[in-house]
Amino acid sequence: MRFRQGYADPVAAEGQVLIRVLAAGICQTDFEIAKGYMTFKGVLGHEIVGTVVKLGKGVEPRWLGKRVCAEINCVCGKCEMCARGLSTHCLHRTVIGIHQRDGAFAEFITVPMRNLHAIPEHVTNEEAIFVEPLAAAFQILRQVQIEKRTKVLVLGDGRLGLLVAQVLHRAGCALTLVGRHEKKLAIAERIAATGAGRGTVRTVLDGELQNRRDQDVVIDCTGRSSGFERALELVRPRGTVVMKTTVAQGAALNLTPIVIDEITVLGSRCGPFADAIGALAAREVEVVPLISKRVKLEQAEGMFGAGMQGEGLKVLVSMEK
Amino acid sequence: MRFRQGYADPVAAEGQVLIRVLAAGICQTDFEIAKGYMTFKGVLGHEIVGTVVKLGKGVEPRWLGKRVCAEINCVCGKCEMCARGLSTHCLHRTVIGIHQRDGAFAEFITVPMRNLHAIPEHVTNEEAIFVEPLAAAFQILRQVQIEKRTKVLVLGDGRLGLLVAQVLHRAGCALTLVGRHEKKLAIAERIAATGAGRGTVRTVLDGELQNRRDQDVVIDCTGRSSGFERALELVRPRGTVVMKTTVAQGAALNLTPIVIDEITVLGSRCGPFADAIGALAAREVEVVPLISKRVKLEQAEGMFGAGMQGEGLKVLVSMEK
Repeated sequence: MRFRQGYADPVAAEGQVLIRVLAAGICQTDFEIAKGYMTFKGVLGHEIVGTVVKLGKGVEPRWLGKRVCAEINCVCGKCEMCARGLSTHCLHRTVIGIHQRDGAFAEFITVPMRNLHAIPEHVTNEEAIFVEPLAAAFQILRQVQIEKRTKVLVLGDGRLGLLVAQVLHRAGCALTLVGRHEKKLAIAERIAATGAGRGTVRTVLDGELQNRRDQDVVIDCTGRSSGFERALELVRPRGTVVMKTTVAQGAALNLTPIVIDEITVLGSRCGPFADAIGALAAREVEVVPLISKRVKLEQAEGMFGAGMQGEGLKVLVSMEK
Repeated sequence: MRFRQGYADPVAAEGQVLIRVLAAGICQTDFEIAKGYMTFKGVLGHEIVGTVVKLGKGVEPRWLGKRVCAEINCVCGKCEMCARGLSTHCLHRTVIGIHQRDGAFAEFITVPMRNLHAIPEHVTNEEAIFVEPLAAAFQILRQVQIEKRTKVLVLGDGRLGLLVAQVLHRAGCALTLVGRHEKKLAIAERIAATGAGRGTVRTVLDGELQNRRDQDVVIDCTGRSSGFERALELVRPRGTVVMKTTVAQGAALNLTPIVIDEITVLGSRCGPFADAIGALAAREVEVVPLISKRVKLEQAEGMFGAGMQGEGLKVLVSMEK
């Protein structure tokens, strides 16, 4: 049941709201889950924009009718992790469309009130489905010190790579984006030329990149297990590798360079929704060019057939009839 | 030529000294190198104590006759890394007994003056060969914030694990040492009971350890590639894994927990010699119980025969006739 169609609609429990989904994004993680990652069997979809149509008990009335997106970790608020302020790591969490909680490839979805973020009026639905992945990109700025002269290399020109590149360009650094697709790299170049970035951007085709260990920070957005080893070949001694993407299978890896070159590896997952919404509202990042395909809910399920791998960029599922 | 015997003795070049080796330690890295790691073909031995017997041009006269140990990275002082103050990562470095420079399993060895550290009179030769690995243990305190309530778990009760445990116990934290050998764990318990430690120490046999993701910091000193995956099962979300040991072969690894749990992984190699010498001189760490075997130089080569694996603790090679 990857897509909820023709099933009974969910009911908002105490502290939760019922959302009529307006649009949802298909993400690489969805394809990984379909292949077996996380052993999740429920409805997929964790990039959401919708309208709050019913309130469960105890929900503040101001949410009714609001256009919203939702943080994906649904937390207990009581465990050791929540008490530490690490609620995205709540020991009892469910995750929308990923872990023990149905997602947004549906007409309706229920979400805890605490997960909601209002979408400013002039941010479109198509833009709003990027809030979750864009927030994940912003997380990098909270984990690594990025300054104007910091040499940063982003591996991967898929959707996440292009978002990360924009966020870093906006922050300001000496950025290199490495990918396998001239067309996607061209999107990054065009955005960089017209955007609000404070740094410099250089794009390089993967095959043409020389492996010099000279980058202060390398961010792996490839979604391939080989991406991590590649990152270790590009980062300087005592530099930082940020792992943004998960892959379903383990691969044979040589981790010796981590020790020899004293590399710091940072795992990075969810991020601050407010930063992402703010950047979209201020027009400081451009996301619509990253939409490669628009489908209706009833067509979306067909994209998960045998051999389907996603397209690197973003597929938008619209719930309009 | 793993051991220099019956060869011409080296000559101290400008800025270097000739050392008559008094004793040297055999380390797990030596066995890894003998198996092919680093593709090094020279004389092994990087844990050294000896007496300076000749000075090359330009060396300060005060070194003549001094009992010394030596930092293992021999650096150019001019490259980008040296300019950044990261000279242990010098782009043109040679490493004593490990990379393009003959080591201490020999009667004589040459070493740059800048690498020398004098050994205080009341620190014995047997203690002095532990300066290099002990410094590597001290490096952890410069990379991770360890406080009295920090939960730290050390994986591995070999020589390095026992040194790391002592250094962390001395610094003060809630320490767990996990190993496979009751005898070695007993050494740690005895030292902890009598030593200058400010924290608590608990020892656990590997098979009896429950994998709870509740440790703030996990330090992998196993020397096995499986140690890293184990560490990822023990560290808490947003916790830190320190990789201290290298292994020659790559293994199939699942790195997904790094991203999901947003783990920080720190590679850690060489460390501050001065801290190690200071702790030995102050009798704050105990190293002689870690010596499991004492051999003469002419016997040492036999230990590198087929199938020899080291013994987990320290073999001391004495150059006395």
